[in-house]
Amino acid sequence: MTVEVLVLVAHGSRRPAANDEVAALAERLARLAAGRFDRVRHAFLEAAAPSVAEAVDACVTAGADRVTLLPYFLAAGRHVTADLPALVAAARSRHPGVELRLLPHLGGTDVLPALLLEVALGEA
Amino acid sequence: MTVEVLVLVAHGSRRPAANDEVAALAERLARLAAGRFDRVRHAFLEAAAPSVAEAVDACVTAGADRVTLLPYFLAAGRHVTADLPALVAAARSRHPGVELRLLPHLGGTDVLPALLLEVALGEA
Repeated sequence: MTVEVLVLVAHGSRRPAANDEVAALAERLARLAAGRFDRVRHAFLEAAAPSVAEAVDACVTAGADRVTLLPYFLAAGRHVTADLPALVAAARSRHPGVELRLLPHLGGTDVLPALLLEVALGEA
Repeated sequence: MTVEVLVLVAHGSRRPAANDEVAALAERLARLAAGRFDRVRHAFLEAAAPSVAEAVDACVTAGADRVTLLPYFLAAGRHVTADLPALVAAARSRHPGVELRLLPHLGGTDVLPALLLEVALGEA
């Protein structure tokens, strides 16, 4: 049986409350994703722990066969276009037997306009 | 007839490409929102034009009776909790006859976990 983990990757903040928001979101996502992903974790690019490398390594240590990274970013800046792909490439080198997938960033997904309209209409 | 405008408010970047992404998203949102909002605009808190004040004033000049601001932010930082409410209060003072609404920020909306799961499952 394939063990599949989803990792919500956020920027990370010096404000603990902002990082707590990300952790809470990952927990809500975990409840929603039950049956589709075996586990949901979160990770930060900067300023907070766990780092992306730490989170991926922890997934593998816990037996993950497939790790899917979801970039919780609105803009396709350097973090999304360069830093994250480099981190994924490094993780692939460390764990050649594990399938590592990097999804498009949140701001680049096709369903975003529909979500924004829902929010605007007060259905969110 | 009430004229209603939706304003997508983003942080703003020194990278023009990031601001162009926001403008393009507002255009997609406008097509989707046709019939629900008379117009969709975008605005930036920093580093780019139009500012929130400029966008709201332009809405009013163009005849808006109701302006709804949607904060395109993931974290409830100072911009969301302090700067935007202050800008809205100032705009209300300038335009007492116009209804100005400030929506919750994107990262704080209840539908976000479901959207993230869609992205993770590749349905986005």
